Parts: sequence; structure tokens; C-alpha cells
Amino acid sequence: MSGDGGAEVTVPASLNVLRKDRDIQLLLVGGVEKIEQLLGNYSDVADRLEIQAASEIVEMDEPPALALKKKKDSSMRVAIDMVKAGRAQAAVSAGNTGALMATSRFVLKMIPGLDRPAICGELPTLSGHVRMLDLGANVDSGPDMLRQFAIMGSVLAAEVDDINEPSIGLLNIGAEDIKGSEVVKQASSLIAATGLNYKGYIEADDIYSGRVDVIVADGFSGNISLKTSEGVVKFIMGVMREEFSRNLITRFVALIALPIMKAAGKRMDPRRYNGASLLGLRGTVVKSHGGADVMAFEYAIIEAAKEAKMSVSERISAAIEQQMESVGENST
Amino acid sequence: MSGDGGAEVTVPASLNVLRKDRDIQLLLVGGVEKIEQLLGNYSDVADRLEIQAASEIVEMDEPPALALKKKKDSSMRVAIDMVKAGRAQAAVSAGNTGALMATSRFVLKMIPGLDRPAICGELPTLSGHVRMLDLGANVDSGPDMLRQFAIMGSVLAAEVDDINEPSIGLLNIGAEDIKGSEVVKQASSLIAATGLNYKGYIEADDIYSGRVDVIVADGFSGNISLKTSEGVVKFIMGVMREEFSRNLITRFVALIALPIMKAAGKRMDPRRYNGASLLGLRGTVVKSHGGADVMAFEYAIIEAAKEAKMSVSERISAAIEQQMESVGENST
Repeated sequence: MSGDGGAEVTVPASLNVLRKDRDIQLLLVGGVEKIEQLLGNYSDVADRLEIQAASEIVEMDEPPALALKKKKDSSMRVAIDMVKAGRAQAAVSAGNTGALMATSRFVLKMIPGLDRPAICGELPTLSGHVRMLDLGANVDSGPDMLRQFAIMGSVLAAEVDDINEPSIGLLNIGAEDIKGSEVVKQASSLIAATGLNYKGYIEADDIYSGRVDVIVADGFSGNISLKTSEGVVKFIMGVMREEFSRNLITRFVALIALPIMKAAGKRMDPRRYNGASLLGLRGTVVKSHGGADVMAFEYAIIEAAKEAKMSVSERISAAIEQQMESVGENST
Repeated sequence: MSGDGGAEVTVPASLNVLRKDRDIQLLLVGGVEKIEQLLGNYSDVADRLEIQAASEIVEMDEPPALALKKKKDSSMRVAIDMVKAGRAQAAVSAGNTGALMATSRFVLKMIPGLDRPAICGELPTLSGHVRMLDLGANVDSGPDMLRQFAIMGSVLAAEVDDINEPSIGLLNIGAEDIKGSEVVKQASSLIAATGLNYKGYIEADDIYSGRVDVIVADGFSGNISLKTSEGVVKFIMGVMREEFSRNLITRFVALIALPIMKAAGKRMDPRRYNGASLLGLRGTVVKSHGGADVMAFEYAIIEAAKEAKMSVSERISAAIEQQMESVGENST
């Protein structure tokens, strides 16, 4: 019940989801009075909605370690505790990313064989969408972590997007074998040896082309790529706005073109891709954009429900175990 | 006289530049017969145009080391030799980037105190443009190289864009001090100590906002950011094209909106930003996009002429020397 919009966003989004999908049950964690007030009359979905009290809130700019140590009754912590206790199958938060990562790791623990969680997001492409990880959970990722990301991303795309043997690309500068950093080159060999449907290097201008189903990147360049995209979109929209509002004629044309622009905008709407998965944990945690509105937060809840339903965490665990066994076999 | 379009692009572009700017003299390097044939009648600019024979061509996919070793009479090598000999003040090439870098370093040498060249490109912003480096000349850049990039970028923006004390941002993930890789954190301290107009970290969604004049990045993330931008633009254009060509009505609206779209497109046209500088060398070398057309290549020539005129290379050398002196003073 956090994020920039707070419960004013998350509570209406929760109600909308409950009314659209009869299979979903929600446990709202936060200030009971505030939640009840925002819920209004919810008798139609009352059988699938529960409220769990939490007295604290992790601030958006709070240092993660401090939040973890001091705020044991924050809505974030209580929600993740619910997942640990098996009372919830997934946690969704629009709050402080660092605190969500730290708390999730501390409470749920990592899947054995995995070093660190990765943030996996969904991005639009001309033909559908692509999953990309890591989008910034880690600043320095070694070759073996990139291999782990590839396995996690592959499982997610296979289960949630129902893709048989998802194709995987490794983000690099230049598609030729000679290019790229040492880390990326070593990671490429490791991923090639996993038996996944690995397509080799992918350059950043191919992210939105739909050439692969999953893109693996270190958290630094993944985040740079994601934020660059946001910046380019803002820039293009800014230029278009200026040009279309230049004079009376251009404003008139803008009115006529509006429905088409809206249709185009809908296909690129980041709200429809809201909800990034924290992969690698023993449990499902989905991070919503802090600035999410009601519609965007609904997508994050739905993403979490899908991941829980398809047992993504358990399947990642099984895939990692299988990889470790095959490495063991190869080395004997 | 290389690049994907070959002399068919570079020769007409050269003629156009000569006819537009009476201060520029050009030395075309390549196959004499081919160049003369493409020049046609150039008597109006003949006093400012010379042809220099070169019998070989570096292929776009040729390994840089091989090109450097084997092709001593390539148009690329001969052009850079002309700069070294003082017969030309700058070299422009649309050819193989790696070979251009390797040949430039070998022939011209680095400015003392600098480790490696950086590729510095110009990108559009809502309020004008920004210079960003490194865009991929280096895959692994340590903190001190990032400091060197900051100095080089600052000189370029000051001289060519005529900006007094250009503002500088360091590309990072997250604007808070606690975020970012170790390399970036150390680089930030080093740049802060240079006395440049350093504004601290900048996130990738701010690249196109025009918040700073120069953005410093390691070559890996700089290249990822640049290529991501290209991908996003292609994606948005693709979606717009699909939506505007959906039916007769949308096609009609597209016709009406065309002039506005064109005006917007012009402001974002990558051809107007063609011509990336190879900074750090004892001489001026500008890299044109391999796929440049005539108009784009003209911009690359003009960029090279500006840099030569403003003695960017010499001024970078002076700035580096000054930095070394002040470090020397501080340490005594």
C-alpha cells in the first residue's frame, strides 16, 4: 500500500482486479481505517478480500537497510511475511525498490544456487512483447549471474507468456563475436552451455524489434537502456506536442489525428507493461512503478497472480537444480 | 571514401559542402577515376578540391588489426596520413569504426596523458543538443578514463558549441549518491576534483531533456543507450506507420498530418547529428555513420571542419596538461 500514489491508487486497483477476475483473492496490507474508507462498498467481492493491518510505511527514499532493520510492521514487510507464511501466494508493491529487494531477500531467501534477485520487466515490441532482466537490481553482475538471469527469464517467459523454449539474447555492443566486454563474452559461453534456446548477442537497437523473447543484461546497462527508452519517448512526445500546438491549423490537425495517436499510444502505453518481477526468490514478488496509476497497478497485480498461478518461483528452482545436476554430470 | 554508400555518397556530399561553405577545402582520398567520374563538372570549386589516390579499401567487417597491418594504401590510412603530415587538418570517414580507431591511434598517436580515444556524438534535446561520450570506443573504462572523457567533452562543447563552462553529467543508475557501480562512484569524485562545471550523476531518462551540455558514460553503457534510442525511434515510427495506414480514413488523416510530422521528424533527424568525434588523438578525426546518406555525410564534414577550425585537439591537449599540473601542485 505504498508508492507515490499510496492507497488511493492501490485500493481502487485492487477492487477493479477483484471485479474483473473471479479467481483472484486479495489481502490488502496497510492502515485498516484508510483502506476501509477507500474501499467503500465492496460487498460484491468481500468473500475474496481481506485486510491485514500494518502500522508503518517505508518511505520512497529510505535507505533499504534501515527500512529492513527498523520497520518490522511496515506494509511492505507484513505483505512479504504473508508470502513467507503461505497466507499469500505473491506480494505486490509500488514502494521503495531497494527496500523491497532487501526485505524480500531477507524474509523469503534466495532459491539455492542463485546469488541475487534480478528485476525482470516487460517491454512492448512491434510483434508483442519481450522480457528483459536485470533492470537494475544489481550494479555489478559477473558472467555466472548473467547465466542465472538467462535461466530465470526463460522460465518466466515459458510459464507466464506460454512460450515453448523462449529465445534468449544477451545484450552487447556489436553483434560480432569479437566485440563486447570480458564479462559479456564469458557469460555468452556459459549461457550457450545451458541448453536454453540461446540466440547469442543482441544489440540494443533490437530490443524493441521482437527478435527474441528474453533479453539478458547486467543491471547497470539494463537500467540505462530502460531509462533511455523513457527519455526518448518523453522527448518525441515533447517534440510532437510542440509541433502540433504551433498554430491554429496544426491544432486542428491534432484534433483530427487524435484517435489515431491514441491508438498508437495505447500500444506503447507503459502502464500496460507495469509490474516487474523480482526473480530468484523463494516466493513471488512484483514491483510496480512508483508512479503507477490505478490502471497500471492493476497490471502489476495481474502479473503477480499469473506468476503465482504458474508457480514461476518453484519452476525456476527446479530449472536451477537441473542445471546444477547436468554440470555435475559433465564434470564427472 | 568508404561506408555502406561508398563514394556515391561521399563525393556528392563533398561537392555540396564546398559549394555551401567557401572557407572549406577538401582532399578526396580514394580511387581517382571513380572520384572524377562522380564529381562531374566541378570547375566552380576546383580551387578548393584535390584528389589523393588510394588503391585499397578497408571493408566494413574487416578486423581492425588486419586492416592496419595489411592495407597501407587504403583510403582510410592515406587520409589519416594526410592529417599526420599536416596536409589536411581533419579526416572524415564513414568506414569501419574499429579500423578507423586503430589507424588513427597508430598514425596520429594519443595526446600525452590520455589513455584511449573516445567517440563523442551529438544528440538532440528539447532545447538544443547534448554531446555524449564514450559511445563505444571502449568496452571497459576505469574511473580515470571517465575523468578524461569529461575533460575532452567539456573542451569540445566549449569550442564547437561555444558554451562557456559546459555543464557535465555522469551517466548512472539512480541520482542518489548511494547508487551506482564502484567505477562510476570513483569517477564522480575524480571529475568533481577537475574544476569542470560538473553537475553530478544523470539518469538515462534525462539524456534528451537538455539538463546538461555533456554526458560522460563508459563506452558500453553509452553505446547501449545510443542503440536503445535508435530502437525506440524505429519502434515508435513502426507503430505510427501501422496505425496511420490502418484504413482509408487513417490514411487521409496521415496526409493532412504529414507536414507537421515532417517538421517534428526534422528536429529528431539523426542525419543532422551525424559525425561523431574521435577525441583524444593528436589530430581531428570524425566518424560518419556507415549508413549515412549525402545530407548526413555533409554534417560529418562540417563537424570536422568546425573541430579543426577551433583547434579542439590542441585545446584538449592544453586542458589535460593543465589538469596534470594542478594535480602535481596538489600533491606537493
